[in-house]
Amino acid sequence: MKLATLRTPAGTRAARVDGSTATEIGSPDVGTLLAEPGWRDRAAAAGGPVHDLGSAELAPVVPRPGKIFCVGLNYRSHILEMGRELPEHPTLFAKFADALVGPADPVALDPASAAVDWEAELAVVIGAPVRRASEAEAQAAIAGFAVLNDVTMRDWQYRGVQWLQGKTFEATTPLGPYLVTPDELPGGTRPELDLHCAVDGDTVQSANTADLVFDPVALVAYVSRIVTLRPGDVIATGTPGGVGHARDPKRYLTDGAVLTTEIQGLGAQRNTATIPV
Amino acid sequence: MKLATLRTPAGTRAARVDGSTATEIGSPDVGTLLAEPGWRDRAAAAGGPVHDLGSAELAPVVPRPGKIFCVGLNYRSHILEMGRELPEHPTLFAKFADALVGPADPVALDPASAAVDWEAELAVVIGAPVRRASEAEAQAAIAGFAVLNDVTMRDWQYRGVQWLQGKTFEATTPLGPYLVTPDELPGGTRPELDLHCAVDGDTVQSANTADLVFDPVALVAYVSRIVTLRPGDVIATGTPGGVGHARDPKRYLTDGAVLTTEIQGLGAQRNTATIPV
Repeated sequence: MKLATLRTPAGTRAARVDGSTATEIGSPDVGTLLAEPGWRDRAAAAGGPVHDLGSAELAPVVPRPGKIFCVGLNYRSHILEMGRELPEHPTLFAKFADALVGPADPVALDPASAAVDWEAELAVVIGAPVRRASEAEAQAAIAGFAVLNDVTMRDWQYRGVQWLQGKTFEATTPLGPYLVTPDELPGGTRPELDLHCAVDGDTVQSANTADLVFDPVALVAYVSRIVTLRPGDVIATGTPGGVGHARDPKRYLTDGAVLTTEIQGLGAQRNTATIPV
Repeated sequence: MKLATLRTPAGTRAARVDGSTATEIGSPDVGTLLAEPGWRDRAAAAGGPVHDLGSAELAPVVPRPGKIFCVGLNYRSHILEMGRELPEHPTLFAKFADALVGPADPVALDPASAAVDWEAELAVVIGAPVRRASEAEAQAAIAGFAVLNDVTMRDWQYRGVQWLQGKTFEATTPLGPYLVTPDELPGGTRPELDLHCAVDGDTVQSANTADLVFDPVALVAYVSRIVTLRPGDVIATGTPGGVGHARDPKRYLTDGAVLTTEIQGLGAQRNTATIPV
């Protein structure tokens, strides 16, 4: 099953996506839907107003996650090519919901940053409360997956030893277009999906999510040792090699640049980097 | 004006505190209240049910802040005594709302951590949306101040280079008892208040908030360059010297330890470190 959050004149609406149509489910957004018991059955059975997906405007698939955990260096081949050892524990940092934008929205370039970079990532979306999860509980708590680009102000990220201030600039992080449930994906809750990121048509990142050191199930189990994960919470699983800051010469997003981020089976984002007026 | 969030059999209630009584305002909690236009006048005029403060149970004064920004090393004397230079920018990291507890609640010791430490802090609570704030706008956006103890799992904090996982353990961070508006405090929006922390009656931290490198107004202005601060958002302004991890020998919170955190004019927290059953 594929879910999306539509923007309508009356506000956002959770919808089930079937081919080229989106059928309203009766919840204001996918985050709210996930907090309702029996959301899978409700979404599968829903028969509300139908929208043409091609002309629909999409919000971040979960507009206001209570928590967004992000994972640092987590692609095996990239860690090894950098000459580092595989980490014993995930590196976790945060992002707040105000950073999110929809999959076709502008990504806000802030004049305060001269180093806006991309980080294509697989996002895990939580579908049930879970604390100190076993492997089976972690799997059951995963509602599905979505595309996320952890757009980062590198100059702000490295102002100090903590990355948060470069990671949570307003309106910089596309999430969506869809949440896709694990049963639709090769690998299920440990999906094996090609991930691709391009800037103005140039491929900049290309990897497969099977290369994650800490896979989605392991991450849900790990984070739930710290705190209860709740419906709508998001874990961004980290980015592979190919970010602009590591290039020679470095490359960043500039006004008008088109950032496309795609994961097999999860759809594509197309965001234009834009200096807000 | 002093505000608190009461726990009642019917759910939480925002209340105005006058001496030994708390008068309900008609909002479910102080975070919700702050998002309502004219909250100052509403709170001042409120005449709902009255509770005896001595027997009232208090929730975190803002139970579910949308964002909690925390500041790293920010006390001048402590930085200088450590032989470091004063920082050019604040160090920012995050905490999620699930970490919060009330001012008299147990602080949850997690058996997964053997190094639970205290960090007494002045918390700034936002009372109006603010983005790219001038100094005057930053001052106007401050609803008031509260006591916060940024209780930290040191072993988890230092598992990697990012501190988040040691900072957001569930039910570890007391916030409250009150929000006190700046007009009641010496120094106003740059309050000059004695801060005190004790473990089992032993003073472990003692400082004055006038010693902050980045004061509340500067922090609101700085963070608002990154993202819109919204009513109920919290900035924890950092802790002075005296944490357990820096002692020789190191000292941590153990089962049954009583942690008291007090700031002049803002009231006191008294939390017992407890291994949850």
